[in-house]
Amino acid sequence: MKVNVAMLGMGNVATGVYKTILQNKDIILHRDNVEFNIVKILVKSLDKERDPAIPSEILTDDINEIINSDSIYLVVELMGNINPTLEYVSALLEKGISVVSANKDMISQHWPHLEACAKEGGSGLYYEASVGGGIPIIKTFLDSLQSNKIKKLCAIINGTTNYILTKMTDDAVPFETALNVAQEKGLAEPDPTSDVEGYDAKYKLSILASLAFHSKIPVSKIYCEGITGILPQDIQYGKNFGYIIKLLAIGKREGNDIEVRVHPAFIPERHPLASVRDAYNAIFIEGDAVGQLMLYGQGAGASPTASAIISDMIVASQTAIHKYTTFENVDVPSSQITFIDNWTCEFYIRLIVTDEPGVLSKVAAIFAKHSISLESVVQKSIGHSEVPIIFITHRAKEKDVKNALSEMKASGAIIDIASLIRVER
Amino acid sequence: MKVNVAMLGMGNVATGVYKTILQNKDIILHRDNVEFNIVKILVKSLDKERDPAIPSEILTDDINEIINSDSIYLVVELMGNINPTLEYVSALLEKGISVVSANKDMISQHWPHLEACAKEGGSGLYYEASVGGGIPIIKTFLDSLQSNKIKKLCAIINGTTNYILTKMTDDAVPFETALNVAQEKGLAEPDPTSDVEGYDAKYKLSILASLAFHSKIPVSKIYCEGITGILPQDIQYGKNFGYIIKLLAIGKREGNDIEVRVHPAFIPERHPLASVRDAYNAIFIEGDAVGQLMLYGQGAGASPTASAIISDMIVASQTAIHKYTTFENVDVPSSQITFIDNWTCEFYIRLIVTDEPGVLSKVAAIFAKHSISLESVVQKSIGHSEVPIIFITHRAKEKDVKNALSEMKASGAIIDIASLIRVER
Repeated sequence: MKVNVAMLGMGNVATGVYKTILQNKDIILHRDNVEFNIVKILVKSLDKERDPAIPSEILTDDINEIINSDSIYLVVELMGNINPTLEYVSALLEKGISVVSANKDMISQHWPHLEACAKEGGSGLYYEASVGGGIPIIKTFLDSLQSNKIKKLCAIINGTTNYILTKMTDDAVPFETALNVAQEKGLAEPDPTSDVEGYDAKYKLSILASLAFHSKIPVSKIYCEGITGILPQDIQYGKNFGYIIKLLAIGKREGNDIEVRVHPAFIPERHPLASVRDAYNAIFIEGDAVGQLMLYGQGAGASPTASAIISDMIVASQTAIHKYTTFENVDVPSSQITFIDNWTCEFYIRLIVTDEPGVLSKVAAIFAKHSISLESVVQKSIGHSEVPIIFITHRAKEKDVKNALSEMKASGAIIDIASLIRVER
Repeated sequence: MKVNVAMLGMGNVATGVYKTILQNKDIILHRDNVEFNIVKILVKSLDKERDPAIPSEILTDDINEIINSDSIYLVVELMGNINPTLEYVSALLEKGISVVSANKDMISQHWPHLEACAKEGGSGLYYEASVGGGIPIIKTFLDSLQSNKIKKLCAIINGTTNYILTKMTDDAVPFETALNVAQEKGLAEPDPTSDVEGYDAKYKLSILASLAFHSKIPVSKIYCEGITGILPQDIQYGKNFGYIIKLLAIGKREGNDIEVRVHPAFIPERHPLASVRDAYNAIFIEGDAVGQLMLYGQGAGASPTASAIISDMIVASQTAIHKYTTFENVDVPSSQITFIDNWTCEFYIRLIVTDEPGVLSKVAAIFAKHSISLESVVQKSIGHSEVPIIFITHRAKEKDVKNALSEMKASGAIIDIASLIRVER
């Protein structure tokens, strides 16, 4: 089956897709009976030098040549951004041209609109590459976990921060040092804000949690905290408790209560996510039928992402009737979903106190007053007048912990709250 | 869309499927617009008591009631075995009734025949549950890795042996003790042969390697060695080198050379498979585009397996044109595939020697003669006249290593070959 394809954008990933389609033509034809014929590529500059070289008659800077074509069945969108991409993709879907996209910003923010355009046009929207690079997490939700009620989703979906945290853990170096190494290796952008502040993970979590919980999870409902405040000494203290630090994207659903959050967290060293090192990604899921499931792999890079894109292209070409994702809180507007911002977890807390009798009892009394019970307390004597005390709490409410800490600070019981890191199991 | 379904067999997994379909009717209908209507169940005994109770008019002991029905679209085969299952499934597929099966014995041994029956009948054969329980590994090969050349597959696909090896590692107990615990917990059969000798893993590897390498891998071509000979002291010695022991199912392809083997192996403790503990399964893949990918989850149990079965049922119901797996060496008979039995890897070797000068030099000379270079040597002095020496080799040919060891034994240079464990990275 010959399939005419257009591409929007010709950056790094798009070049990977273009190359792989040319190189593996035979494999794809033999295995899946699909032959991709790239007929148009939308680019900004028609006369830029490209490697591999692209026949000039394929290149265009006019989207209408693609939207108004009668022979294009499938478009691969790799331009990124929302403006003008959303307009282009909406028009294509409405016209009946299926779209394969890796655009997490656009999908996470305009998903129901895009699904509606696709439904109207009878086309399909495919977005495996929008989260987790080559990891088939989207298809797993759509095609393998249909009968499951997902209780929990816990993911490492930003390779840059996972690399930085691995480096900080292995080499006991501060954040800035690890960030510099990541930048030198091309694993972090010159402006790393979107990664290190957790924004990238937040967009991806919005997509994953929407699929897991069958409800549209707006990016704005996701609590987000980055890794810039993580200190090497806390990583080392955590090790003594058997914990490893990760930037986690967490989603939980119980009944109609949903909590979604991105923040650094300690996890037990035997947790499957603890072995996810360097720039790797992994998504850990708990479903009522499937139990624990984890998918691990390369979350970025031209070649793994191209693998996901091409898998979508093949499926889109073979599918006679495209499927549409429905969300309980969009398609059934009466559905009650409550976003929880006062979640329960365990906490690692490092306080700085004066090294004198009675301090621990004051602090313990304030914890007790706020219904926070303690699992362990370690006082580090370092021969100074100011010493750290580390607490691991039992499960407690986020707001109770924050209130207790504010009270300690205000009452002068402690000098400083050095760190607060959530513990996930 | 209402889909009439028949089931063959009503054991543990089948009951899980039956229950989940009844319980999650609404979810499946809402999310995927499919409503399963179980119209017939083939059982051996019509009047056995069942929980949940099944309306007697659904039960039958005559397969012809199902094969000759005009209203059944889909059959779920959970009878197991090959006789008479193969005959039933072949007839159903030829008649145009799609089959969802978890039968690894049947699929691994009669796959091209079953695909041919399905092609002839225009029906589909679905077998996600045949390997890895709830882990979506079959769909990952079929729908996500299409454009990849898979170089390597390394899997923990038998939960019983993984539980036993985890127990032996954690508690430093012998095989028999760990096996007894597994049997008490219901994680090992009263006759554990199929699991502990690696036969179960061999059938599953046959299926996975066939999908990975697009060539039919006969069970007979798979080298197979179980875990009954693994000693706790080797597990402990391995720990000192940073290794963890696992029963691995390994497939590798380079050009037209394929090697497939099931045996215990040491892996570095930082390998993603090293964190797969207890009865969990995981499949680790290396593809040219996707890079490293690992899927982890529950490889057995009624509920995870039911999750996989129902996902296949939904996909089979939504698919207008079923896909057929083609194998290079079946469908293109001229294709040259060579099965390699003299593979290259690193080896952990524990020899028992007399504690006297010159022994190490004799042994080292024989290794050198057979082109085996050594990465490390550790002599354990235990105050006896017989002492162990442990060697880790660099990459070497299996047959060279075996020849070297035979020569050592025959020449009297050593007292005994205590252990030989392959090391995978």
